[in-house]
Amino acid sequence: MHPDELRDLLDDIRRGQVSVESGQARLLERFRAQPFEDLGFARVDHHRAARTGFPEVVFGEGKSPAQVAAIAERIAGRGHTLLVTRATPEAYEAVRTVVPDAEFHQLARIIERRAGEIPPGSGTILIAAAGTSDLAVAEEAAVTCEAMNNPVDRLYDVGVAGLHRLLAEGERLHAARVVIVVAGMEGALPSVIGGLVSAPVVAVPTSVGYGASFGGIAALLGMLNSCAPGVAVVNIDNGFGAACISSQINHL
Amino acid sequence: MHPDELRDLLDDIRRGQVSVESGQARLLERFRAQPFEDLGFARVDHHRAARTGFPEVVFGEGKSPAQVAAIAERIAGRGHTLLVTRATPEAYEAVRTVVPDAEFHQLARIIERRAGEIPPGSGTILIAAAGTSDLAVAEEAAVTCEAMNNPVDRLYDVGVAGLHRLLAEGERLHAARVVIVVAGMEGALPSVIGGLVSAPVVAVPTSVGYGASFGGIAALLGMLNSCAPGVAVVNIDNGFGAACISSQINHL
Amino acid sequence: MHPDELRDLLDDIRRGQVSVESGQARLLERFRAQPFEDLGFARVDHHRAARTGFPEVVFGEGKSPAQVAAIAERIAGRGHTLLVTRATPEAYEAVRTVVPDAEFHQLARIIERRAGEIPPGSGTILIAAAGTSDLAVAEEAAVTCEAMNNPVDRLYDVGVAGLHRLLAEGERLHAARVVIVVAGMEGALPSVIGGLVSAPVVAVPTSVGYGASFGGIAALLGMLNSCAPGVAVVNIDNGFGAACISSQINHL
Amino acid sequence: MHPDELRDLLDDIRRGQVSVESGQARLLERFRAQPFEDLGFARVDHHRAARTGFPEVVFGEGKSPAQVAAIAERIAGRGHTLLVTRATPEAYEAVRTVVPDAEFHQLARIIERRAGEIPPGSGTILIAAAGTSDLAVAEEAAVTCEAMNNPVDRLYDVGVAGLHRLLAEGERLHAARVVIVVAGMEGALPSVIGGLVSAPVVAVPTSVGYGASFGGIAALLGMLNSCAPGVAVVNIDNGFGAACISSQINHL
Amino acid sequence: MHPDELRDLLDDIRRGQVSVESGQARLLERFRAQPFEDLGFARVDHHRAARTGFPEVVFGEGKSPAQVAAIAERIAGRGHTLLVTRATPEAYEAVRTVVPDAEFHQLARIIERRAGEIPPGSGTILIAAAGTSDLAVAEEAAVTCEAMNNPVDRLYDVGVAGLHRLLAEGERLHAARVVIVVAGMEGALPSVIGGLVSAPVVAVPTSVGYGASFGGIAALLGMLNSCAPGVAVVNIDNGFGAACISSQINHL
Amino acid sequence: MHPDELRDLLDDIRRGQVSVESGQARLLERFRAQPFEDLGFARVDHHRAARTGFPEVVFGEGKSPAQVAAIAERIAGRGHTLLVTRATPEAYEAVRTVVPDAEFHQLARIIERRAGEIPPGSGTILIAAAGTSDLAVAEEAAVTCEAMNNPVDRLYDVGVAGLHRLLAEGERLHAARVVIVVAGMEGALPSVIGGLVSAPVVAVPTSVGYGASFGGIAALLGMLNSCAPGVAVVNIDNGFGAACISSQINHL
Amino acid sequence: MHPDELRDLLDDIRRGQVSVESGQARLLERFRAQPFEDLGFARVDHHRAARTGFPEVVFGEGKSPAQVAAIAERIAGRGHTLLVTRATPEAYEAVRTVVPDAEFHQLARIIERRAGEIPPGSGTILIAAAGTSDLAVAEEAAVTCEAMNNPVDRLYDVGVAGLHRLLAEGERLHAARVVIVVAGMEGALPSVIGGLVSAPVVAVPTSVGYGASFGGIAALLGMLNSCAPGVAVVNIDNGFGAACISSQINHL
Amino acid sequence: MHPDELRDLLDDIRRGQVSVESGQARLLERFRAQPFEDLGFARVDHHRAARTGFPEVVFGEGKSPAQVAAIAERIAGRGHTLLVTRATPEAYEAVRTVVPDAEFHQLARIIERRAGEIPPGSGTILIAAAGTSDLAVAEEAAVTCEAMNNPVDRLYDVGVAGLHRLLAEGERLHAARVVIVVAGMEGALPSVIGGLVSAPVVAVPTSVGYGASFGGIAALLGMLNSCAPGVAVVNIDNGFGAACISSQINHL
Repeated sequence: MHPDELRDLLDDIRRGQVSVESGQARLLERFRAQPFEDLGFARVDHHRAARTGFPEVVFGEGKSPAQVAAIAERIAGRGHTLLVTRATPEAYEAVRTVVPDAEFHQLARIIERRAGEIPPGSGTILIAAAGTSDLAVAEEAAVTCEAMNNPVDRLYDVGVAGLHRLLAEGERLHAARVVIVVAGMEGALPSVIGGLVSAPVVAVPTSVGYGASFGGIAALLGMLNSCAPGVAVVNIDNGFGAACISSQINHL
Repeated sequence: MHPDELRDLLDDIRRGQVSVESGQARLLERFRAQPFEDLGFARVDHHRAARTGFPEVVFGEGKSPAQVAAIAERIAGRGHTLLVTRATPEAYEAVRTVVPDAEFHQLARIIERRAGEIPPGSGTILIAAAGTSDLAVAEEAAVTCEAMNNPVDRLYDVGVAGLHRLLAEGERLHAARVVIVVAGMEGALPSVIGGLVSAPVVAVPTSVGYGASFGGIAALLGMLNSCAPGVAVVNIDNGFGAACISSQINHL
Repeated sequence: MHPDELRDLLDDIRRGQVSVESGQARLLERFRAQPFEDLGFARVDHHRAARTGFPEVVFGEGKSPAQVAAIAERIAGRGHTLLVTRATPEAYEAVRTVVPDAEFHQLARIIERRAGEIPPGSGTILIAAAGTSDLAVAEEAAVTCEAMNNPVDRLYDVGVAGLHRLLAEGERLHAARVVIVVAGMEGALPSVIGGLVSAPVVAVPTSVGYGASFGGIAALLGMLNSCAPGVAVVNIDNGFGAACISSQINHL
Repeated sequence: MHPDELRDLLDDIRRGQVSVESGQARLLERFRAQPFEDLGFARVDHHRAARTGFPEVVFGEGKSPAQVAAIAERIAGRGHTLLVTRATPEAYEAVRTVVPDAEFHQLARIIERRAGEIPPGSGTILIAAAGTSDLAVAEEAAVTCEAMNNPVDRLYDVGVAGLHRLLAEGERLHAARVVIVVAGMEGALPSVIGGLVSAPVVAVPTSVGYGASFGGIAALLGMLNSCAPGVAVVNIDNGFGAACISSQINHL
Repeated sequence: MHPDELRDLLDDIRRGQVSVESGQARLLERFRAQPFEDLGFARVDHHRAARTGFPEVVFGEGKSPAQVAAIAERIAGRGHTLLVTRATPEAYEAVRTVVPDAEFHQLARIIERRAGEIPPGSGTILIAAAGTSDLAVAEEAAVTCEAMNNPVDRLYDVGVAGLHRLLAEGERLHAARVVIVVAGMEGALPSVIGGLVSAPVVAVPTSVGYGASFGGIAALLGMLNSCAPGVAVVNIDNGFGAACISSQINHL
Repeated sequence: MHPDELRDLLDDIRRGQVSVESGQARLLERFRAQPFEDLGFARVDHHRAARTGFPEVVFGEGKSPAQVAAIAERIAGRGHTLLVTRATPEAYEAVRTVVPDAEFHQLARIIERRAGEIPPGSGTILIAAAGTSDLAVAEEAAVTCEAMNNPVDRLYDVGVAGLHRLLAEGERLHAARVVIVVAGMEGALPSVIGGLVSAPVVAVPTSVGYGASFGGIAALLGMLNSCAPGVAVVNIDNGFGAACISSQINHL
Repeated sequence: MHPDELRDLLDDIRRGQVSVESGQARLLERFRAQPFEDLGFARVDHHRAARTGFPEVVFGEGKSPAQVAAIAERIAGRGHTLLVTRATPEAYEAVRTVVPDAEFHQLARIIERRAGEIPPGSGTILIAAAGTSDLAVAEEAAVTCEAMNNPVDRLYDVGVAGLHRLLAEGERLHAARVVIVVAGMEGALPSVIGGLVSAPVVAVPTSVGYGASFGGIAALLGMLNSCAPGVAVVNIDNGFGAACISSQINHL
Repeated sequence: MHPDELRDLLDDIRRGQVSVESGQARLLERFRAQPFEDLGFARVDHHRAARTGFPEVVFGEGKSPAQVAAIAERIAGRGHTLLVTRATPEAYEAVRTVVPDAEFHQLARIIERRAGEIPPGSGTILIAAAGTSDLAVAEEAAVTCEAMNNPVDRLYDVGVAGLHRLLAEGERLHAARVVIVVAGMEGALPSVIGGLVSAPVVAVPTSVGYGASFGGIAALLGMLNSCAPGVAVVNIDNGFGAACISSQINHL
């Protein structure tokens, strides 16, 4: 509660323009303010945009299409940008009945309807992916970045075993304000890119690989141990998380 | 090689102002440019500042005091900011003989001499630490940020089991442009802070704890699985790495 | 065998009111008392209620519907409360043919028929769940607590990334005699709640999450390393186990 | 802030007995109340006793003797019970200079001075330890329980490979209100005791063992997978944590 | 090659009764003797019975029904006992066409036809299983023991959380010459039985359990760290392996 | 760029036979040479054969049949040997429509069309497999070696538990120039073979086994810890990778 | 209590030859018989020899010399064979003051005094060790076997990378009644020996090795996954445990 | 035994020039030939050079200086090249007393005396190391290669975060017949080099790094999952093993 607002309220009480009971009620309410809406199985957080820079995003995995649709309706109903990650086609069908103009990005597994309330980011976010099998995660990052109003540059299939493919794109690398690097297997690409650019690098390990890749652990460890400074890491396959922090940086 | 520079050179060859042999030599040199200095056991990378935004930093662990001093001499001799992490007092003694005005930050284990060539960052980097045992890592981050010319705000001992200590500092949290969060044990602090601020959060797990903390793995996993978006993670105890990416963000 | 009971028996033998053979038989029986019923593939433990405070519970996973029904019939036939966890709809169909008034809690995956023999617990058990994906485990805990005759208060979707949702419910938190906290991903909720209440906290990690959550390991480690005292942990997804110890505490 | 207290304050403002400025200041203070004392490197939490049932406990590992003494002085100076765990003899020497009547429990590695402000627990806490090598952890639990004003019964060297040692103590087992079970190696003791008693069992894995005990992981997993209901687990070697939750239960 | 056999051959050469060429051929053959039959995809080892005490056993997993049948035909055709583990009903159908009197043990997943060539074991092998979910593995052990001509005593559902079920069977425990103990979850049963009997105990961890049982790792570690001497362990779910070594012991 | 080629070009510029603009363009092109073809989702690397000794191989897993066919068409269209690993029958159908004479090796899961441009290897590559369940991986190695124009000798079902099967084949072992050893379970075969031959041994752990084989980790660790020198290891189930390095060695 | 013994006692009571009080006391004593001696920190189990075939063995690690000596005195004082494993020279000095004729086996780290009460084993126990670094564990097994009155044959440095060293000793291998195989690194030796002999094989992984041997895990996994039947495994470095079960087998 | 040698012997027997007894003895000896020397604690393998291409190498770790010297004396006494890895200065002192002209390579921790019996390798072995902390392992590889008579080219401090340092050395990379790549941290260097050269690449992960490098596991996994074909891996820090297989390849 802003000090000025508080002083005004107390002045009003002092002058008798607001009763003690009413003032007590308003202040108690502020102590316990509930900026969320309780759906029973979920509490939709309508203030998150103000607090953290983007609206509440729905994590679709493990939720029924009906649950996804119910939450989506509340968010879109308030005029917020709607973003559902890890969405199934079934969830999209359910959402479309309540938010008819929602779009579905199949490869990225994202349901989206932009509301235009998010200001544009300052620069371009480049998304580099090591192999063709990393594209789903890379697209989750890309579509999320775009939903958060950032220009995106996609640079795919530039793994370190064919270094010339990457080195040929020096200009695009240097033009980016933030670089998201998506890679599975040994996860070496962020180290190489981190040594080439001065922009912050957000690394996303993917569960691509077999044998001792252990569902992305090898790539995760490789990225955490990167010998290049300027690299931070998000969870395995977490294209969405990489987009969030990258958009936050791009909106500074 | 810049196209204009190349055209100028070819023009000079065309006009006979530069001989073919000399042009050939200059071009071959550009193909193979070696912007590093070979000390036999190490190749000092003098162009890194231009390329990635800060000069080559010396990782002190596993190097002898004499090796550290030799590298430090080269870096300082070129007028670059000197930064040696994981430094021992013995290494500091050795460095002081060749770089007399180098400072030693004991808790942070850093040898430093600023050269003034790095421009100031745009905002403040807040460094939050969960417990008193996390201070060494937090200080490694703080001193590195300062060496890279960023204002730093230290907020220590604000673990989640005493939440009011953290909530009392809302203003400092919101004032930061980047937040580094250092925590051991369960590593929950980045999730809580990530839900409170809109600045990017760089999380540093520490090896503090015992039993099933497994030298920081518990904290690392907690941070990677953060339910708050806008959080990225660096390696266990890697205060230096967190500072690098945070400074890059703060210099955008 | 109580010393008085033993002395009385020996007195009776001494006085000839009980024959040596009969006394021998009764004593041998006490040495080897078998308070269980052997079904061939299972030994139903009818004395467990007396010994540990609640009747034998059937773990449904890996048992055929016919096996579940056979055990259920024995337990219900003795007038004990019936509780089958990890039950399938098929098992419920089989049980219903032999225990017609058994209920099925679908989300909790529990078959239940209360027999009224368990005394009420002293206070309320609050069950807090971090996200909507943790509800199945939370409900397993809640239904089990209720079957053991404890009042239950459900507080769902109060994850640490939206702290105000939790802080708004301070009164309910403080009113509980025991708190069960169910959380996946980084498992930070028990640390936060453990720092707010003086009631014992029983933490249940869930296998919710992806990537480096490793099927609940991240949450489990987070909870074991909780910086808040007063927190103990049960196995991943073990809502039933959390309910057992919480009911025991609530029946002290 | 209690509603009555708030109403009284507003009444006073209304009646002019408290100025608007003073009321504003007092309310703002309540919004941001800081019930801790900032020592620079640590924030001593004086309200924790009220909030969680026992005073702030000092975790001695990784703190210098001087730091431990400084914190101890603040806690004891307020008349709170002082408890320092994982304490070294050096730390004890330092504490003694500022809290002269502090005691040192060498095997338990605890510095303690009781202040008498904690009410007595309702029943006895039994502490069972599997082997002689588990005694240090068992004593950490025992001394902590005693410092929190609980009667303690110690039952040591009752490992499952010599079951008669345990079965001979049935009366002591049944007399306990809470049972703490400390075991290394395979960690089987809590399962056996959990099947014998109706009291809640708090299991503490220890790092005792060799080879595939992996510093207590084998015991930890054994306890988490206990087939006996009514068992919850704390971190490896965490005798203190087991005592905290057990004392909370015993004070219900 | 036995020295006497060799001397006889050389004598024959000396006396001209065996030509040098023929002797050379026979000796070379002995140097390279191939006591197996090459099916292309498999080399059936007909001498294994002589060498290790039981005939080659077919591991059914990952083999097609046709491959299983082809190998089974060779083994049975030589009059050896046929044993196929991890067999599917489909494999059984295929085997029956070539070995009509082969039996299928469904719970144990074993195809078997005894040939009567294995001598009887000296004593009884007791197979103890902790829970009803461990029965498949226990039966794999039991049927294998029987195929190797050992009397078997089955003692099922005697987990440590209901100790009296086990203690009531002291006589059967003491009567066994070898004890196989099958248990999942925390794997504590071998420790308890190992403390009660003087017979060697072969422990088999099962993948029964959930959460932190990690597919049998918890039980495996518990058994390897058993505080009872006289316990050795085989692989997770390896009822067959436990039977092999137990039968070898029982045939000494 | 070869120095002579560069000098010739500069001479031409000097003499006016090549314009400055044209020279600039040609040089810039060499700086950024892109020896790949961009399909949008993939960048086909046509120079790899020259650079690393064999053409780009398509890793089929995670690619749609249409994607596989599109890449295959480009590779075959340039007259390069086509090799698709981890291929499904569906992918083969798709490839056949654009490369009609491509073959499918079902057990090896490889689509192949040799173009005859790879020179023959110097000696024979022997592929030893421990068990019949390892054949798929062994065949992946064998077919890849053959596609790279190496003579292959297959030695299957020679596991260490029946050592005579292996020892009987000493001549074939010694005749090989490189030995690939494929084994699951304990992965002991490379150690034994490594002690018998002087040829380099490339070990391939397979995910064959159960329980504590952990999908090939046991075999992988066994091979990495081989007590025999002269053994190097590739990823679990990576028959293709073993073939690559073996063919490189055989082509030296 | 034997039924006959019980009937005799009741007869005596019946006939008045034993008073009710005395009979009650004797029976209560049998219910609670404590066949151990309570030293406060340890409960010495004097009946273990009768129950499990060998006397209580003292695990020396983590016990002070004084504690070891106190327990040793009790065991030797009853005329039992004394065996202290993982003993330090300091513990030996302390033991010698109370058990003057105790011996110290330095390489095996065992204090021993045989009392002659253990009957001889039936055959020879062969102890095979892969490398010279495995000798300490092998000797722990050997000395324990000898203390338990078994003839021992030592076969050291017969690792699988030099197979002829092992094959040259076929006669000694076949002469053994039990084989203990001690190996670090990849732990392949038990598989090879298990394929050669019909005696039971007890495998002991050692923590010998470096890198990915992970302190014996590689060897442990190798042994658990042995492709040879007839192999069971004990804990890493647990030479004592291997000797216990081998002696039990040899005493059948 | 060569067929001709055998035939000659039989001819001699046939002709009476060799007695049956003598022939029998000679043949039996060949069946059991012991091409090793038994020192009690070790069996020196004098035929290994013939069998595997290089003489027995002494692994110094865990052996006393006296043991190392005893084995060294035997090897050098037979005129074989002496190589002791993981050697301490103390071991060197001991060796020098019996092999006076042995050399000690301190950084590589190798004692060496070449005997000149190993033929020269065909090409150069290039040893690339990522960082200055990897030098000890790189030198172990280099000195071993030289002892095995291979020309060695050392290329140190060429980590992927400063790619131009590596790309500047393309000629040396392409000139090598085999490339050993030594790297810690994320272990990305072999992937990059594997994509540049056609020579086989042997990758050595090192335990250099901190936090989530886990003593070299991160580098090991990175290398096993290399996206570049033509890469095989040896154990963590196993410079010796990499040299062995590289020398074998270079001697083909």
